Amino acid sequence: MKFRVSHKDNRTAARTGILETDHGTVPTPVFMPVGTRASVKSVEASELKAEQVHIILANTYHLYLKPGNDIMQAAGGIHNFMQWDQPLLTDSGGYQVYSLSELRSISEEGVRFKSHLDGSKLFFTPENVVDTQRIIGSDIMMPLDECPPWPAEKSYVETSGAMTVRWAERARSHLEKTAPLYGHSQALFGITQGGTYADVREWTTRELVDLDFDGYSIGGMAVGEPAEEMYRMLELSHTLLPEHKPRYLMGVGTPENILNAIERGVDMFDCVIPTREARNGRVYTRNGYINLRSAKFARDFRPIDEGFPNHVCRTYSRAYIRHLLNVGEILGLKLCTMHNISFYMWLTRTAREHIEQDTFSEWKLEFLETFNAGQPA
Amino acid sequence: MKFRVSHKDNRTAARTGILETDHGTVPTPVFMPVGTRASVKSVEASELKAEQVHIILANTYHLYLKPGNDIMQAAGGIHNFMQWDQPLLTDSGGYQVYSLSELRSISEEGVRFKSHLDGSKLFFTPENVVDTQRIIGSDIMMPLDECPPWPAEKSYVETSGAMTVRWAERARSHLEKTAPLYGHSQALFGITQGGTYADVREWTTRELVDLDFDGYSIGGMAVGEPAEEMYRMLELSHTLLPEHKPRYLMGVGTPENILNAIERGVDMFDCVIPTREARNGRVYTRNGYINLRSAKFARDFRPIDEGFPNHVCRTYSRAYIRHLLNVGEILGLKLCTMHNISFYMWLTRTAREHIEQDTFSEWKLEFLETFNAGQPA
Repeated sequence: MKFRVSHKDNRTAARTGILETDHGTVPTPVFMPVGTRASVKSVEASELKAEQVHIILANTYHLYLKPGNDIMQAAGGIHNFMQWDQPLLTDSGGYQVYSLSELRSISEEGVRFKSHLDGSKLFFTPENVVDTQRIIGSDIMMPLDECPPWPAEKSYVETSGAMTVRWAERARSHLEKTAPLYGHSQALFGITQGGTYADVREWTTRELVDLDFDGYSIGGMAVGEPAEEMYRMLELSHTLLPEHKPRYLMGVGTPENILNAIERGVDMFDCVIPTREARNGRVYTRNGYINLRSAKFARDFRPIDEGFPNHVCRTYSRAYIRHLLNVGEILGLKLCTMHNISFYMWLTRTAREHIEQDTFSEWKLEFLETFNAGQPA
Repeated sequence: MKFRVSHKDNRTAARTGILETDHGTVPTPVFMPVGTRASVKSVEASELKAEQVHIILANTYHLYLKPGNDIMQAAGGIHNFMQWDQPLLTDSGGYQVYSLSELRSISEEGVRFKSHLDGSKLFFTPENVVDTQRIIGSDIMMPLDECPPWPAEKSYVETSGAMTVRWAERARSHLEKTAPLYGHSQALFGITQGGTYADVREWTTRELVDLDFDGYSIGGMAVGEPAEEMYRMLELSHTLLPEHKPRYLMGVGTPENILNAIERGVDMFDCVIPTREARNGRVYTRNGYINLRSAKFARDFRPIDEGFPNHVCRTYSRAYIRHLLNVGEILGLKLCTMHNISFYMWLTRTAREHIEQDTFSEWKLEFLETFNAGQPA
């Protein structure tokens, strides 16, 4: 994997870049739709490409449970399995172990937990999580980490952060002893932790930078802390992370969060918000979100966002999608999902364009003013 | 609407034809996927076109309830509403009134019933069902009919059949007093009834033929009678129906039913079987159906039907679709649905080709032998 910064904004930390993988090139800043179980909910891989999606994310924890490593390996990896021929990133599974599974116990060795599906006893270590990601065949892998809740005692965040750094080093060492299985190379990022304790964030970041990973994930954010705290951590991270390596803010966020993070030097994002909201009928327009389940759209024959350059807005009316949601037709969920993904892709694409033209800050303010002003008339 | 028979099989009643509507031309025999509520479940209109679907069916009863006539008219009809620019046929709603609604009471005037959605009291007459289909804007409309159950007393089938004929005449008369709303012409078929009583089937058919409809639907079949009884009624209908008008066997059926009906002179079919089965993971191959929910496909990386010329088989493996179904991803339902629709389109398309080459009977036997032999190895 190669990364280069192609343009730096002249007033903020925002930058554009080019991430090159064996499955293709990703212009950054970029949003990665979430394909938890080798499927971005209801959307085909070919449809994602048509919406200018460059890279997607899949979850190691979910794929480890089902279909499982043996089937994934027999399939020749996730790209073959789901027929996605573009770049793909996997998380480490750590976050799902903490949020979904029961009876987890964390030790220096790794984390023991019970599957949320069938209660079977499982054990993730920094080493076997790399092995699983070798089998998945993601272009960018994450090391096993622990993501503390917010708020958390400082002593806990320190102990946990130190272990996450040691796990990252073990992951890195195991990576070097193993080889890709399918002929394409696989990068490994380091994940910084430390919650919102600036000094802990700083030393976990410094230690990971010393280990020289292919890129850096900013972890432990978007777990309940105020947005301002997150922005403060991003500003700190910007001063610590090497300029020539990609920066990925895990699990973030709303359009506003994303633009504010881009302004603070972040290159990559993933979040379930656009797809989860879509399944509730909540879709994005440049004038704020609207909830298509509302009866007020029953005779609204305009597109979701008039003039928005995507398939859903070129083709379907609010009234039609509202009808589909209203009668429980799953096509309604798909159209909302495709639209929201497309909106997030437009958001990061437009941010890129404005960074390149040194107009990012003005555009961001203008966009957020209109977007936050609320519902369209 | 125009129809002409383009080729007659030299050994059976099978024929190919061309049905011309203002929304395009339909080669027959043809299968019409069911788009109950202005959506063929989970599939976009553009995807149906790509699968060589020429005409779809929508249900007057469901559309009358939701979105309702006012929204449908404000949308400019169903073609605009769902963005399907090809021909579309609507049923009369009669069948759903009998199968879904409560507390129906049938009189000469029409049928009173309660909505299965909210219990509201509704009244369908031959006239207002034409009005609703004018508002829907289907290319081919059906008159209100009564579809007796099977078995039913002969006296009931006689009385009901006579009323269905009178209702057809009223529908026809009302059609002539009204005009299309959206600039494209709308045909009206007559629906024959009579259950499996040959003499009742014969006189309802003769009376409808005397009224000279644009085409003829063979109703009251596939309601539980043995297939042989249905085939006997089709053979009778073939001797009574005018050769130069299209014949539509409502609600039929399995691949075997469809081929046997084509052999007996039927041109048009609709059925929920392929889409409903798809949602249970049951998909068709030329070697019989398979149930993709089965664990035996977990590592089967072949397509659903090797070499089958459609998007799903060119793109996805059984193992991937089985994984999607297994974890509850709705993309799995969509891929099964698209495949089954595509299979039915292939079935009627291939039947057409063989009729034109006078090889229909041999092909039918050969296909059914392989298809019925069961699961592929």
